[in-house]
Amino acid sequence: MSRLAATYRIRALHADIERVARTVALEQSVEVPMEAVRDAYVADEVVGRVERIAPCGEDVFDVTIGLAEVTTGGDVAQTVNMLFGNSSLHAHVELIDAVFPDSLARRFGGPRFGIAGLRERLGVHDRPLTCAAIKPQGLSSAALAQVCETFARGGIDVIKDDHGLADQSYSPFAERAVACQRAVQRVSRETGRRILYAPSLVGSPKALYERAKIVREEGIGMVLLAPALIGMPVFHELVREHLDVPILAHPAYAGATRVAPPFLLGKLFRMLGADAVIYPSYGGRFAYSEAVCRDLADAMRGPLHDMPAAMPVPAGGMTVERVPELVRFYGRDAMLLIGGSLLVADDVLERTRAFTRAVAQGART
Amino acid sequence: MSRLAATYRIRALHADIERVARTVALEQSVEVPMEAVRDAYVADEVVGRVERIAPCGEDVFDVTIGLAEVTTGGDVAQTVNMLFGNSSLHAHVELIDAVFPDSLARRFGGPRFGIAGLRERLGVHDRPLTCAAIKPQGLSSAALAQVCETFARGGIDVIKDDHGLADQSYSPFAERAVACQRAVQRVSRETGRRILYAPSLVGSPKALYERAKIVREEGIGMVLLAPALIGMPVFHELVREHLDVPILAHPAYAGATRVAPPFLLGKLFRMLGADAVIYPSYGGRFAYSEAVCRDLADAMRGPLHDMPAAMPVPAGGMTVERVPELVRFYGRDAMLLIGGSLLVADDVLERTRAFTRAVAQGART
Repeated sequence: MSRLAATYRIRALHADIERVARTVALEQSVEVPMEAVRDAYVADEVVGRVERIAPCGEDVFDVTIGLAEVTTGGDVAQTVNMLFGNSSLHAHVELIDAVFPDSLARRFGGPRFGIAGLRERLGVHDRPLTCAAIKPQGLSSAALAQVCETFARGGIDVIKDDHGLADQSYSPFAERAVACQRAVQRVSRETGRRILYAPSLVGSPKALYERAKIVREEGIGMVLLAPALIGMPVFHELVREHLDVPILAHPAYAGATRVAPPFLLGKLFRMLGADAVIYPSYGGRFAYSEAVCRDLADAMRGPLHDMPAAMPVPAGGMTVERVPELVRFYGRDAMLLIGGSLLVADDVLERTRAFTRAVAQGART
Repeated sequence: MSRLAATYRIRALHADIERVARTVALEQSVEVPMEAVRDAYVADEVVGRVERIAPCGEDVFDVTIGLAEVTTGGDVAQTVNMLFGNSSLHAHVELIDAVFPDSLARRFGGPRFGIAGLRERLGVHDRPLTCAAIKPQGLSSAALAQVCETFARGGIDVIKDDHGLADQSYSPFAERAVACQRAVQRVSRETGRRILYAPSLVGSPKALYERAKIVREEGIGMVLLAPALIGMPVFHELVREHLDVPILAHPAYAGATRVAPPFLLGKLFRMLGADAVIYPSYGGRFAYSEAVCRDLADAMRGPLHDMPAAMPVPAGGMTVERVPELVRFYGRDAMLLIGGSLLVADDVLERTRAFTRAVAQGART
């Protein structure tokens, strides 16, 4: 029988770990004590199996549990449920990784464009990509379109909405997305350079489907989605059935978990269809370490069920001065995202040009 | 201008807390440094305001930040984004509470039935309610319907699917929900006692809407939903637009957060439409303290925007022996949920009867 292998980091005493591991295996599968399992099929196939217990520190163990694929019903929400439904309520348990059977991975599908597809759409193959975010929220759609235009003239590849831009009265989605797309298209026509605008879609399913329609109608080339905010099952359905452009995933609300970032942001978001994934890079205003950032980039770009690689998008308090270091750290297949630090400059256009020049130079050295 | 008041528990040195609080206020609103805010409306109205800093331990502070209601666009996903989008990525920040303006609360709507409506549907007014979960997954629909029948004959008020039951091959939703509903109805007709069956709906929006249709067609009287698994925006839309029965909310995947349980499970789930909310009670196999459990029950039953009270459903390793203590602790307006410990008994029917008798007796003493 085909199984997912889920690995949990569990705090427990050495004397207790085998019992604790079996308890987690029951909790994440049948949710009853073994005495209540009276059916042979359930006992043999459905009950989670402790496959490996590896010490990884004092009173800390990495426990791999085999969960029957059949329990997922091939569904995203139910897969998350099987991986970390009740155990998310256990303070001593963290989900750090999961290996999926190919059959389940195929149902999820992974990125449709990936790094190669994104580069193809932009016509950029020899350097890291650049990304900037339009903000702050509260500005009108026209003012935000103006910021788009400045970034476009400054040479940015992907111009995205701040993830705080939703459907507020000061810049309603339908008005903002159209104004920004047209501003970007105008610069693209004038300069002959390909540029993608990625509006942020935030809302309930009905609103998301309506906004996806606007994306298609306006020929918008990319979309920003926060899977943890809109819900991972919705993210997956929206991407598969309503959008035919590359997807940029945002980590909003996804940090509030005891799920290891390389698994959640790196692997799971990619499996669900993200072509590029934003995350808080080391040395910025968030707290991920260099090691976690390397693992994140590896999870996005490494081999995974024959799925296309997804583009790492380090962000969160990045600056133009740090570009050479970031290019050395992440290599060519990354998209560097600078937001606020471009917008504080006295001359935003010149600052943006300094950013895109630094990336082009960084790739040559 | 109308504002939400969000309270964060922040770890910081005394000398730093004012600066850290302002940083969180910017992060949760405009997401740029103040120097990049050049528009007067944005500076005056949209930027988050630090309203209160209260020490609550060594290097720990409760910081209340006023966030403009207009930033939410009246949307569930965007409200969660404003409350804890990027700050969820900050290990030193926990969201512990939020007070909503009435206008936003009205958009969310709250419970449609609440404690009073649930009691009305069951015709039970003078004692705590009882709840049991059918499991383990892996059993056939017929076998699960048989468990339903046993619980129904044992006197249980609400019989729910285990939240691990989704749409698996061994008990597909459409088959299982119909079989269980009919088993419960049969006992109800024979005994003249009202009983509610609550199937679990887990999946992507399209699948959820299809299953909600089956719920309506079969006259099923209650539904189990895990807002964190399916996504809170989907939960809200599903409840408001596709279901007209009381909603039992489940905490699966909702523990993996740095959001205080009384706010997330108690207040927010209630605001989004939960009529009853399951949570891991103290002394069970999960780790909530008595104080958290009391706060949870208070958040569900206390005054909130004129919304109906929601029913606390303590669960997670409860036993028949603990019923008198639980009734004393939670009082009459609770629904006690016992799952696995009924199913391990040699005589499940007799054990179920002992449970419902203990609740009836507990209410009289």
